[in-house]
Parts: sequence; structure tokens; C-alpha cells
Amino acid sequence: MDFSKVPLQTVERLSRYRRVLADLQEDGVESVFSHRLAELMGVTPAQVRRDLSIFGSFGNVARGYDVVELHGTIGRLLGTDKLQTLAMIGLGNLGRTLLTYRGFQERGFHIGPVFDRDSEKIGKVYAGRRCYSIDDLETVLPDFKCKMAILACGSSGLDAIVARLADLGIRSILNFVPCRVIPPPGVFIENVDLSAKLEKLSFLSKA
Amino acid sequence: MDFSKVPLQTVERLSRYRRVLADLQEDGVESVFSHRLAELMGVTPAQVRRDLSIFGSFGNVARGYDVVELHGTIGRLLGTDKLQTLAMIGLGNLGRTLLTYRGFQERGFHIGPVFDRDSEKIGKVYAGRRCYSIDDLETVLPDFKCKMAILACGSSGLDAIVARLADLGIRSILNFVPCRVIPPPGVFIENVDLSAKLEKLSFLSKA
Repeated sequence: MDFSKVPLQTVERLSRYRRVLADLQEDGVESVFSHRLAELMGVTPAQVRRDLSIFGSFGNVARGYDVVELHGTIGRLLGTDKLQTLAMIGLGNLGRTLLTYRGFQERGFHIGPVFDRDSEKIGKVYAGRRCYSIDDLETVLPDFKCKMAILACGSSGLDAIVARLADLGIRSILNFVPCRVIPPPGVFIENVDLSAKLEKLSFLSKA
Repeated sequence: MDFSKVPLQTVERLSRYRRVLADLQEDGVESVFSHRLAELMGVTPAQVRRDLSIFGSFGNVARGYDVVELHGTIGRLLGTDKLQTLAMIGLGNLGRTLLTYRGFQERGFHIGPVFDRDSEKIGKVYAGRRCYSIDDLETVLPDFKCKMAILACGSSGLDAIVARLADLGIRSILNFVPCRVIPPPGVFIENVDLSAKLEKLSFLSKA
């Protein structure tokens, strides 16, 4: 199937479907009707049927959706059924913090090579990962076969780094740098700006 | 002024204004016109004037905005000019990881008391913070005078915890739990779902 045709909002709901189905599976539920799934998701039954029909025919009029099968299929669609290696750019506070976060691994994501421009860090090993020079991105990254990267570096020269990552086959990027980057064609960027969220909450807590 | 009257999108832009102004200040720029500020922000000059006029009169037709003054004012508006203590609920992987992240401190946020339900963790000290029992929330939290909290716990019983936090004067919450919580009246919740973002990126990297 052509993944690029799937609406972004459907993609965003896939994680939630996976979670709801995991909970049902844990509770020993074998099959679920679209209206129950819709209720658990907080969407309409029509939305559920529309979302899932994009990926194939899972439903059965008499029994509904098979929980184990659908859960497995969505995991494969998301690519979380096998461990994926991510590259990380930047080994400052945030980068080092992310290296210690085991939650990524639990979801099927492993931070592999890390890159920095600080000669103090290059060549050293942090939480089991070697730090490479950002200058060596083109020689090092291909060995790791990464399709995803995490940006946890400074904002200067960020566009150039993203362009280099795109040239090396990186297709999607989780950006923690508080700076909007315009993605090159075919590259997806998701922004996580923790400071901005905290500052917004700080303002609102005074309201 | 009545902070609750400020449009949410203006609040969200305040962090970016602060950053842009900090960069200008670092570059030794003393004053900036709304059209230049608009360019740096990626919004219209009219938007800049509208946003900033909500908080008072900073502009000067001849010289534009005073960079140092405006930067200071926005910092005070955001409440990041002084250190604020946040409570954290949950000391699993993510909670422990967040305790080691020094970026919060750099932005004026300090994680103070942490709460968990695991008797193995209660009473122990993690990265300098004592872990309290979630059962003792009502007796412990008031001493810390927190108005903000971080949720990094499991999803079961989350609504009840949020209701208790609200009763204790918590006004805004950064929620890392992959679970939508309906905020009690007067409480703001910002969701950060790292796994969902990664799963979305994983799907899109295959497109």
C-alpha cells in the first residue's frame, strides 16, 4: 500500500488504537466492535471503520475486529514490531538525558550513533553509545541504516544538519530544538518544545 | 491585568518572542521595530503589535521596542524570571529521566517533591529529591507551594490524581502520560506524548 496516501490524522490515531487494543488484549478481550472501539478512542464508529479500512479488511459483521490480529497489524504498520535504530544529533543536557530514557526501547526505538561538535565529547562513550564528530556524519551514519533521527543540539546551523540527514536517507525527525526547521521534501519533522510548553503553563498558572 | 483573557495562541508565541529577544540582546541589538520582530517570528507586524499591546505599551514610533525591557517584561509575564518549583507524579523510567534533565532548571523550573505509589521507592532520594507516597499528597504538597505539576506516572487512576492536584492548588500540568485527561475547571493540561510522536514518525519513515 502507499503509506504516503494515509491522512496524517489517521496516522496519529494509530498509536492510540494500538494502546487501546493492547489494553483490551491484556484484559483477555478477543474481539471488539467498531462502536466499542470508537467509545474507547473518543471518536465515532464511522471514523474507526474509515481509519481501519485504509489498511485492509479486519472486521467481521458477527464478531467485530479480532483484537490480537488488529493489534499485531497496527504494530507492523507503525514499524514498532521490531527494534529501529535512531541517530541522535547533540549530546548536551537533553541529549544525555534522552540516552538514559528506557521508554524509547520499550516502544521499539533504540538510539544508536550520537553526533556532536564538541571535541571534548567526540570519541567518548555515553550510556553505551559512542559519540562521533558531526563532521563524520556522512561516513558513520550509513553503517547504522537509520531512517529516523533525534535533534537535541543547538539551533545554529540546524537547517544544514537537517539537509545532510535528508541526503543520508533520514526520513523522519523528532526535533527537541526550540527552533522551527523547514523539512526538505520527503522528510517529516515532529517538534517537541518542552520549554515552550512549561513557559505556557507557567503563564497560565498565574491566570 | 487579567491573564485569563489573553488568547492561548498569544501565550504560545510569548516563549518564541522571549527567545528571539534573547538572541537580539546577545547580539547587542538595543531596539527593534515590529516589522523586524515579525520577520524573526514568522508572523505579521500587525500580529506583533496586537500580541504585545495586550501587555502594555512597549513601542516607540522612532526607535521601536526596547529589546532589554521587552525581554525582561516577557520573562516576568511567563514567570520564568524566578525559579518555580514543580511537583512530579511518578518515578518510573520517564520520571527518573526527567529528574536528571538540567534544561528545566535553565528555564527557571525546578522539580521539587516527587510522588509514587511504589513502596520500594517511597522514602528514597533520587537525584536529590525525596520520593513521597502518593497517599501523602495532601500533607506534603502544600509545603512546597507548587502551582505546576508533571505527570510521569501510569494511566490508571490518573483522573483522580489530577482532581487531587487541582484541589491542592495546582493550576497547570505537563502530562507525559499517553492518556487524555479532562482538566478540572481552572486547570490547564499540556500533553507530551513522545511514544506517539515516534510511532507517527516511524510510520511516515516507511512512506
